[in-house]
Amino acid sequence: LQAHLCGTARETVMTTDANQQIVIAELPTNKLGTEHFSIQTTPIPQPGAGEVLCKTLYLSLDAANRAWMQGATYRSAITAGTVMSGGVLAEVLVSNTPEFSPGDLVEAEGGWQQYFVANSKVQRKRIRRDPLSHLVSVLGVTGKTAYCGLLDIGQPQAGETVVVSAAAGATGNVVGQIAKLKGARVVGIAGGEEKCDWLQAELGFDATVDYRRDDFHRGLKEACPNGIDVYFDSVGGAVLEAVLFRMNMHGRVICCGAVSQYDTGSPEPGPRGVPGLIVTKRLSLRGFIVMDYYGGLAEQAEQDLNTWVQNGNIKVVEDIIEGLDAAPEALIGLLGGQNYGKRMIRVDPTAR
Amino acid sequence: LQAHLCGTARETVMTTDANQQIVIAELPTNKLGTEHFSIQTTPIPQPGAGEVLCKTLYLSLDAANRAWMQGATYRSAITAGTVMSGGVLAEVLVSNTPEFSPGDLVEAEGGWQQYFVANSKVQRKRIRRDPLSHLVSVLGVTGKTAYCGLLDIGQPQAGETVVVSAAAGATGNVVGQIAKLKGARVVGIAGGEEKCDWLQAELGFDATVDYRRDDFHRGLKEACPNGIDVYFDSVGGAVLEAVLFRMNMHGRVICCGAVSQYDTGSPEPGPRGVPGLIVTKRLSLRGFIVMDYYGGLAEQAEQDLNTWVQNGNIKVVEDIIEGLDAAPEALIGLLGGQNYGKRMIRVDPTAR
Repeated sequence: LQAHLCGTARETVMTTDANQQIVIAELPTNKLGTEHFSIQTTPIPQPGAGEVLCKTLYLSLDAANRAWMQGATYRSAITAGTVMSGGVLAEVLVSNTPEFSPGDLVEAEGGWQQYFVANSKVQRKRIRRDPLSHLVSVLGVTGKTAYCGLLDIGQPQAGETVVVSAAAGATGNVVGQIAKLKGARVVGIAGGEEKCDWLQAELGFDATVDYRRDDFHRGLKEACPNGIDVYFDSVGGAVLEAVLFRMNMHGRVICCGAVSQYDTGSPEPGPRGVPGLIVTKRLSLRGFIVMDYYGGLAEQAEQDLNTWVQNGNIKVVEDIIEGLDAAPEALIGLLGGQNYGKRMIRVDPTAR
Repeated sequence: LQAHLCGTARETVMTTDANQQIVIAELPTNKLGTEHFSIQTTPIPQPGAGEVLCKTLYLSLDAANRAWMQGATYRSAITAGTVMSGGVLAEVLVSNTPEFSPGDLVEAEGGWQQYFVANSKVQRKRIRRDPLSHLVSVLGVTGKTAYCGLLDIGQPQAGETVVVSAAAGATGNVVGQIAKLKGARVVGIAGGEEKCDWLQAELGFDATVDYRRDDFHRGLKEACPNGIDVYFDSVGGAVLEAVLFRMNMHGRVICCGAVSQYDTGSPEPGPRGVPGLIVTKRLSLRGFIVMDYYGGLAEQAEQDLNTWVQNGNIKVVEDIIEGLDAAPEALIGLLGGQNYGKRMIRVDPTAR
């Protein structure tokens, strides 16, 4: 099918193929379940003037996908009855704009579907890499998020203690590895002994703490005997609270996400210590979205990360799941902490 | 008595005079009351080698005094049975160090007493101003706190909306007046209609919101039709939470204090929206203590503030209460929001 598509003219695409899509059947009010999704098949759309038709190669799964269902964030809220939103790596099949040619690789918010049409303005052209999946993982949004947040906001110095939560996840594992390259002592917070052991054995983390253990607070203290200088926070909630109490003077907190509060209908109150500890310890907490760095530091991030990967300084950890129809369960599993590294769906079975 | 002391030798001081002190009788577990203080008279202390004997002129009253009773902050906790801590403006009577001479004005943590001895290292020499009280108010810790926090962390731009809480207080009123000088739209949050009216009529605030009203959230929204770019926070708690939801993209929150949480045995949880709103709005929250700027921006602050006062650009608002024995009730009243501007105790009745 795909091999056929790649070389065809628009009309052939439209008449012979169908577009599998996953739709939000109903927005969750509490935990996300498979019942909130439905699958449908529609005709492959036709690009209008200035538009491109794209074929989805990989679909990125991110905890933020769940946050988008809670309401407007840095983007508009997801609504029921529409194709589920998501970032994808795609290939241009048909272009009605001089800016793109068939065969171009693009990054876009294509959504959970095999084909999509988009205005050229919302596509970002990507340089082809081998394997392609790196463009979604270490060279994708999460890898660049790790780089830009850690280095621009955290500014870790050699010998400082850097703590990262969701450390085995797509962003966290890269944060930890970059912090190690910068000479920091790196402490990962993750769920479960297995992940913690893996972070130390495979990725070289200096210490880890299992946030699910009753003695988490004591474990955090023991893992950070010199306190915490930089904290890369993707989880918020009780873990952020615990870390604030262990931060050193002039510590930096990189606010990247609050995944502990996404998959619930009743978010917790904010962490104690805000703003008291921020004042007395002269902390800074700063939020960011990687898109803020596009055209700037994010480009440097891709270069540096690619070099580090090529040189073996950073290990790439990917969790690739086959087939668009697996996406709902894969996202639910991600929210439950199943994944090691970057979880993505190979939507086009031939993509490599 | 004081006139006598000023010109005397050390021996005379020690034998003829007595030192009135206010002691923490018992630490409060909930609201601070007069029963937590006791008064005593001790001999005037004798300065040792490298020390100076000082006479307290003015005692600064600050909400932070209450926070010090809750535990260690940026300084060690206050303990029962000791002289109550507090910042003072004092005059050197006897100096056993070449760095100070009798008659020098100093700023120190002299505590709630008429005389104190201190190591020369903890004294900061002050330039004499007329009136002396300005050295405690607009040119003192609170004025410099307003200047350094607002300009270094907040960096308000002309046309931006700056919100300040505890706006009628010692720091807040100066924050608002500086922000006006910088061309910002200034919105003050204060307790009660009278204070709000006064801020607009006397200090030129563009709008005010009474945080005690049931419709505070709506009032804040109406007072900030273009959202909030900079928030100078001295109160924390529910007011900080409300402001976070109204902040604009890339807004700056200056974390100066959390007075809403000081005079209680059961601090609230942190504000909702932390860290979620910090991420999605790319906010920064940064804490500071004015002492961090000593030797740097704080010196510029004193110069600029003095110029603005001399030129009539900033009105100085002081609330001077006579006599050390009035200090306990004056602090309790300050925590209840009694004061307009800088509340201080004139400990030496001749100080002007």
